[in-house]
Parts: sequence; structure tokens; C-alpha cells
Amino acid sequence: MSSISGLEEAVEDEFNSFFESSPPLKNMDKILETLNRFIELNSSSQGANGEGRRIVCVTSGGTTVPLEQRCVRYIDNFSSGNRGAASTENFVKAGYAVIFLYRRGTCQPYCRSLPDDPFLECFEFPDQTNIQVHTSHLEAVKSAVLEQQTAIAEDRLLKLPFSTIYEYLQMLRLIANGLKDVGPCSMFYLAAAVSDFYVPWNSMTEHKIESGSGPLDIRLAQVPKMLSVLRTNWAPKAFCISFKLETDSKILIEKATKALGKYKVHAVVANELSTRKEEVVVVSSSGNVVVRCDSDKPKSIVEDNLIRLIVDRHSTYIKESHP
Amino acid sequence: MSSISGLEEAVEDEFNSFFESSPPLKNMDKILETLNRFIELNSSSQGANGEGRRIVCVTSGGTTVPLEQRCVRYIDNFSSGNRGAASTENFVKAGYAVIFLYRRGTCQPYCRSLPDDPFLECFEFPDQTNIQVHTSHLEAVKSAVLEQQTAIAEDRLLKLPFSTIYEYLQMLRLIANGLKDVGPCSMFYLAAAVSDFYVPWNSMTEHKIESGSGPLDIRLAQVPKMLSVLRTNWAPKAFCISFKLETDSKILIEKATKALGKYKVHAVVANELSTRKEEVVVVSSSGNVVVRCDSDKPKSIVEDNLIRLIVDRHSTYIKESHP
Repeated sequence: MSSISGLEEAVEDEFNSFFESSPPLKNMDKILETLNRFIELNSSSQGANGEGRRIVCVTSGGTTVPLEQRCVRYIDNFSSGNRGAASTENFVKAGYAVIFLYRRGTCQPYCRSLPDDPFLECFEFPDQTNIQVHTSHLEAVKSAVLEQQTAIAEDRLLKLPFSTIYEYLQMLRLIANGLKDVGPCSMFYLAAAVSDFYVPWNSMTEHKIESGSGPLDIRLAQVPKMLSVLRTNWAPKAFCISFKLETDSKILIEKATKALGKYKVHAVVANELSTRKEEVVVVSSSGNVVVRCDSDKPKSIVEDNLIRLIVDRHSTYIKESHP
Repeated sequence: MSSISGLEEAVEDEFNSFFESSPPLKNMDKILETLNRFIELNSSSQGANGEGRRIVCVTSGGTTVPLEQRCVRYIDNFSSGNRGAASTENFVKAGYAVIFLYRRGTCQPYCRSLPDDPFLECFEFPDQTNIQVHTSHLEAVKSAVLEQQTAIAEDRLLKLPFSTIYEYLQMLRLIANGLKDVGPCSMFYLAAAVSDFYVPWNSMTEHKIESGSGPLDIRLAQVPKMLSVLRTNWAPKAFCISFKLETDSKILIEKATKALGKYKVHAVVANELSTRKEEVVVVSSSGNVVVRCDSDKPKSIVEDNLIRLIVDRHSTYIKESHP
């Protein structure tokens, strides 16, 4: 046994024991059926350059970590899902089929411009029977309804929701497994904010933790590093983009560069919490590229330019994989 | 100084130090202005029995507890907000004005019957310009738009969002203060799932907690008991209903009864996580009443009967307060 396959086995073992102690995924058969149909349809469709259609899995939103088995309290990771939703729209526009693996309740593709409370603000029933959209929100509602429904009707968008870290990792493994045959034409764009710490299911209290008896001490274990196992075992041929979010700009690039080396992803998108909507840095072995929105275009968002860059890199990767 | 006012002071002191170390509420002036206008308008309107219109503050959804000052991770309390939203509709129907203090993103009044993904499922643009609602969702959309807009236009519903425990408690204090002059005609219906434990702001790390160095130990302090200070200091004349949620039915009634005695609320609504949509128990000094939905009415919900009971009790309370 070579040392590399020894490493692979160790990583896989860590995950297997994580999954063994996880609550099983609900509706797994239905998810698998929908997923496989979507992948099959798209990989047999013709893409832009005579290749099969490219398929990207975009993960979005934060994962939760329950603190009780019959869960009342949980630890959550802040993420609106805006990055994942905007990126999904851009991938569809670039010709990709997108598996949108998102946290329930977070921002949806084509819905970013809706107001917080759309049913209060967007509509009226002027004659009690016919609905109308206020002119100011017409574009936003049309995009949310028409563009979204079109992407789904054309089998270019599949939305799969998760809440817990257990659901997220199990679904990600199913997707990676399904995309194995798509090889270099598949991509993982891992924008979700994944929990670093969790309470192992087996050591979790069944019932609601009681209050009223002084301070509460919680010990959290580290979640096994999914990126390692995804790159080495689950989907070694897929193009893989990970994200690094920090609140301290001083350590951001250093940490992104470390992640690039450690997990052997093809690029790390580094973003700082307070400026993440204006600017990101794409860190890769070919150097660091700062990506901004176009200040002269009023509706420009950073994802327009980011996805253009990522798609170019993916094209190069596909060419180099099929010499 | 009497022993009672000594107790009041101790409770108030605990909260003052909690608030002093809390991040200040954003938009406080605007919230206060909207709130005071709403209370003034309604308390000067005529209610059902010649009294001023009754005003209830319904709290709904869970509060979050940040683990970092520039928050990436937080502890959350599971709550869909369904109970608060359904109760709000019933209070409006019963003639009340409702201040709906809700967790951002949770279930809204009149929107309970919408599907999870309404923009995907409810609408179409058959000729690319005019929007239509699918017949199957027409009633749900009409309720979300028409009934909600009517309640707000009539100044019978004011929606105020929160996320953190800091925002929630500061806003609740503002509301209690605003309702002081409404006296017994005001009610607090505290359905929100409020955090029991938190990390005091001053002892919180500024930046994102780093992963990668073994398990994480967190020590959480107890949140001061809001019910005590609400009943004794903030709004002693208001009718007050609190909630107790447990996952273990064996301890539920005992804990609800304890809360009734400790906080001197007028009733505690006891609910068990797995059966909370079918049945609750109203625990009060006049005995325990089991409240269920009507099994012979297909659309009956437990809140229809619960609010009927609570409104009756409130009527009795008002009569006894003005003999």
C-alpha cells in the first residue's frame, strides 16, 4: 500500500465514522432519483464546445449543528446565501447546469432583488380578484417567477435544501458520487458556510438542556475536513473552488493560501466579512487575482466577474484534462 | 425600603447591567416613533365593550446568541414562528391591535398557507406581462396579500423584526414602556423561544473563532430572566401569558406550573415539541385546561381555540381590574 492510498483511507475512515453516527438522511431515495435524472439529462446534452454540458454543484448558506437530539437549540453559521444565489444565476447564464445545494430559508437564485417582505410590498388585488404587481417591483417579481421557472423547466437548475451539517455532508457525498462520470466537466463551488465544530450525535443529550442551574459548558468536536475527502476520494477529477471567510483582513490571504496548499483545490475565493459584496480575491497557484464589481455599471455585482473568471479557469482545466 | 421594592431593584439592576454591556439597538428613534404612533392611535380607538381597543404584543420565533462580536457563528433556538403568526391572525380577528415582535425570516401572519418556495410554485406570467396565481394557491396568496395589507392599513398590525437576544430584550422593554398607560387592556403573549444562555458581549471574542486546534470549549452564562422584570417592573398591570416548551412530556406540566408560581404570569401555555400543533395545556391558578384543534373541522388549528380562551380570560382580568 502506497502512502497516498494510506492517507486516502485514513480520511475516508474519519468520514465513515462521522456518517455512521449521523442521523440518516430523510427521503434519500427520492433525492437520489431526482439527482441522477438531472445529471443524466445534462451530461448527455451537448454543451458549448462540443463537450457534454458542464455541471456545477453550488453550495450556499450556513449549516447548523444541533445541541440536542430532539433539537431545540443549535449553533448556526451566518450566511444569507446571497453569494451562492448570485453565482448560480451566472453559472446558468454561462451555460452550466447547476445543482444548488442550499440552506433552507436562505436567498434563492433570481430572488435577490425581492424585498424582505414581498407579499406585503409587491402585490395588490385592485378589484379583489385579479392580482397586480406594483410597477416598482415588477422586474424583481418577473425574474423570481419567469427566469427561475425557465431555468428549472429547462433542467438547468436543481434545488436541494439542507439544514444540519449531517444533511449537508451526506447530500454532498451523494452529489459527488453522482458526478463521478462527468469528470473534469463537473465543478464544486463550495460557497456554503460549513460548521467547523459540532457535538457528536452519540454524545448529545436527547432532551432540551435544562436552564436554571448556573452557566453551561459545551465541548465541541471538530467536524472532519470535508475538502480533503472530496478532493482525494469523492470527486478527484472535478474542478473544485472553495471559500475562505474571515473578519480579520490581516490573516485572510495567508489563511486562504494555506487552504489552497492543504486541500489541493483549484482556487480559494477569499472574502472579508465587511467588504465581501464589493471585492474578493481568487487565490490559486497561478497567483492572486482581485475581483471587484464594475463601479461604472449600477447593477454590477462581484459575482458577474467572479464567475466569468472561474468559468475561464474551468475551460482551461477541461482542456488540460483531455489533451 | 420594603422587601418587595428591594427585589424589584435587584431584578432591575441585573437587567441594567445586561443592557449596558449589549450592543445598542439600531434605528431606535425610528422604532420608537412607529411604536408610539401605533399605541396612541389604538388606545384612543374605541374597542368592543366601550373600553379602549386592546393591544397585545405577540413575540414569535427564536432569539440568537452571537458567539463572536463580528458575528459568523451563533446559537439559535428552533422556532418556525407558526404559533405566533397564527395567534396574531386570531387576535386581530378578535378585535385586538397586535404588535408582532418576530424573528427575521420566520413565519408571517396570513402567510402560513403559502408553499415553502412561493415564487416558484404560486405564479405564472402566461403572456410575459400579466401575472397570474395558480388556482390551487389563490386563497393562500390572497390571504398573504389582501388580509395582511388590510390589517396593516387599519393600524391593527405592527410588525417589528429582531435577530439577537440583545435586540429582542431591548425592543420588548420599549414596547412594555409604551404600553404602560394602556394598563390592563394591554397583553404580552410571549410565544418567542428566548435563549436561556449567552456569551456576555464584553467577554466575547471580536473575530471569528479559529478552527484547526482541537475541540472548542464554550462557557455560556444565563440570560437574566426577562419574565421577572417584565411582571414586576416593566409592565406590572398588563395581562401576561408565557410559554413553556419541552421535549419530555413527563416534566412539562411540572415545569409550567413552577414557571406560573415563580413569575406570577396569568397563564403558562405548555407545549411538547412533537404534539404542539395538535394540543397545548393552559396552566393557570384556576386549573389546567387542555386545548385542542377541532377534529371535525379540516382547517381548524389549535390557536383558534387557544386565543378564544385567552381573550375570555383577558376580559375577566380587565373587569376585575376596573371594579
